[in-house]
Amino acid sequence: MDAGSFAIDINRFQSGQRSSLADHEAVEEPLEIRLGFSTPDGRAAKSISITMRTPGHDDELAAGFLYTEAIIKSAADIAAIEACGSPAPDSGNVNVVRVELQPDVEVDLGRLQRHFYTTSSCGVCGKASLDALRVTGNEALTSTAVFREQVLIGLPDKLRATQDTFEQTGGLHAAAAFDTDGSILASMEDVGRHNALDKVIGRLLIENRLPGDSMGTLVSGRASFELLQKTLVAGIPLLAAVSAPSSLAVQLAREFNMTLIGFLRGDQFNIYSGDERVCP
Amino acid sequence: MDAGSFAIDINRFQSGQRSSLADHEAVEEPLEIRLGFSTPDGRAAKSISITMRTPGHDDELAAGFLYTEAIIKSAADIAAIEACGSPAPDSGNVNVVRVELQPDVEVDLGRLQRHFYTTSSCGVCGKASLDALRVTGNEALTSTAVFREQVLIGLPDKLRATQDTFEQTGGLHAAAAFDTDGSILASMEDVGRHNALDKVIGRLLIENRLPGDSMGTLVSGRASFELLQKTLVAGIPLLAAVSAPSSLAVQLAREFNMTLIGFLRGDQFNIYSGDERVCP
Repeated sequence: MDAGSFAIDINRFQSGQRSSLADHEAVEEPLEIRLGFSTPDGRAAKSISITMRTPGHDDELAAGFLYTEAIIKSAADIAAIEACGSPAPDSGNVNVVRVELQPDVEVDLGRLQRHFYTTSSCGVCGKASLDALRVTGNEALTSTAVFREQVLIGLPDKLRATQDTFEQTGGLHAAAAFDTDGSILASMEDVGRHNALDKVIGRLLIENRLPGDSMGTLVSGRASFELLQKTLVAGIPLLAAVSAPSSLAVQLAREFNMTLIGFLRGDQFNIYSGDERVCP
Repeated sequence: MDAGSFAIDINRFQSGQRSSLADHEAVEEPLEIRLGFSTPDGRAAKSISITMRTPGHDDELAAGFLYTEAIIKSAADIAAIEACGSPAPDSGNVNVVRVELQPDVEVDLGRLQRHFYTTSSCGVCGKASLDALRVTGNEALTSTAVFREQVLIGLPDKLRATQDTFEQTGGLHAAAAFDTDGSILASMEDVGRHNALDKVIGRLLIENRLPGDSMGTLVSGRASFELLQKTLVAGIPLLAAVSAPSSLAVQLAREFNMTLIGFLRGDQFNIYSGDERVCP
């Protein structure tokens, strides 16, 4: 049992019989991210996000979120990250994390404001979303990294082996970053897929390993537009998903020269974009 | 092929062989929900949400969203719902829907504002979230409806049979409402689980069938806090999920006297709360 799971008594109905047993659920609690930054009038603080997450690796989640939302540009923008506030009465988890930026970091308050109006990745139509990505300075990725087919096929088992809480609860998404040899560089679990990937990217950011030219990301579920966008911002040229991609994810991958793999299961996968990075 | 899927050419790697084929992806595009309402100074309009969704049933999505977010209290609050704006150039979908409220409906602008700061369901900790639900007037459900074990076991197959786009793309979540006999009252697909459930609840709302005293909801993935919350607001006493619940979902179900079923697969399921509504 770890901080990501919670024990309760439940009833199980199976093959016509009912029995009671102790079970573990994945913990889901809100995390508030507060930002401390400089303005022309002095130091300011602002609550910029509340997300339902699985407690643990909150520093990485906050760092990854700020980075993939283009609020910070590198780990050097961060002066400190610390949990703040008192523990939640039921769980004992601290559910507020405060990120202090360096004095010279400029924060686009308009952008922060817009963040509340749009979800993290949206414009008014898919086209506007892709335009927004261009505006925030993303360019098509030029990485020439290649990933062997057998390396890709081996990834889901490696990811599963890192999922401690999933083993207990069956209720968590997972994300990982890996290199061209298929070594797992970071892996995280969360009730939210976006959080799991933000935690992975936050870890890599804190370790000064980004942009991730010769890395890939791996996610346990579907490949949505938002997961592709986060991978793009991290400069990582490949995303592999265990399940299906959306249409907008495919469009984004093709426009920004990313490799997009879906339905990575058993001895097979689909390549939706960037097949030149996949070799025998 | 329907509006929810999109045809593209991809490469498939399988058992050591690569081939190219035509494939279908689930469409993911942003929907902007605009609200028209009265203020002391006259009529006002406000963009209140942009969500990534699968096009189709946008009226239901908008109505369900406004209802489950407690911005409206019944279908009678709505004067009109209409698509507006020009179609997106690539897909031809209209991605803005405008909901006009009746002149006498009071809109809590503070609440709308807060909506952008918190996601739809969060407070600063789980406890605060549950408190927020109490404040918006939800009470523990008193429904005495009962659901037979065999009815519950039959639901996942019925849901799958309604999933047209999933069959093509493998990339969509589904949600449904059913009655105590196991008849499906409404079912919807979407790239987002919350959207699928909002579409179902919006459909029931428009048909004046809420609160759903003797209904249950069924979701294809995990049971998160937010899905439970939406079910609660609709007055529906049971939620069944194919996968695991989160800890906060269990807490909410127990506090508001809801029945929560998880891991509904094959001939089995788990009961996390409210087992008096499940009978042999």
